Amino acid sequence: MANDTFRALAHPLRREIVERLSGGPATVREVTSDLGVSKPTISRHLRMLEEAGVVSRVIVGRHHRLALRSETLADAAGWIDNQRIRWERLFDVVDDYLEERKEQQ
Amino acid sequence: MANDTFRALAHPLRREIVERLSGGPATVREVTSDLGVSKPTISRHLRMLEEAGVVSRVIVGRHHRLALRSETLADAAGWIDNQRIRWERLFDVVDDYLEERKEQQ
Repeated sequence: MANDTFRALAHPLRREIVERLSGGPATVREVTSDLGVSKPTISRHLRMLEEAGVVSRVIVGRHHRLALRSETLADAAGWIDNQRIRWERLFDVVDDYLEERKEQQ
Repeated sequence: MANDTFRALAHPLRREIVERLSGGPATVREVTSDLGVSKPTISRHLRMLEEAGVVSRVIVGRHHRLALRSETLADAAGWIDNQRIRWERLFDVVDDYLEERKEQQ
């Protein structure tokens, strides 16, 4: 699990790009033309997504298309869910414990 | 979906704390005493986890116990999974499309 994955998702503009790409591969222009930010800013955000392995470029003829790398997303969501599920299994037990402690005081 | 959640998870020490807490609520000392970093550093990382809503403090008598907030984790994993699932539904179709384009060239 790379730090880069979560860092890449920690910005609304990068999450917007991911949301748009989840609808299918698209060119940089298609994905970013109406985001209202400068080209260097777009490039910087895209580079972070690519370096994190969240987005890849697929070259089809002369066109560069951006694609999501779903295995990276699966790993990140999987890690979070493992922690959540482990915790929630304990949750009812902990609830009872806290209740009991409160009654004893 | 807050940027803070993903930023909070973008550090190995903070993920280590989350992994330890997934086994159950624990005191700050229990969770962090063997991490080999200074108390101010621990405090800073814990504050980021708390501000992001990933961790909360539960006061039981005189003890402050740290707890995971599973709803925050569920939201974060849910957002990622939505993008992944939407993408994967398209994946086979896109694969066929790229293959077709390749054959045409």
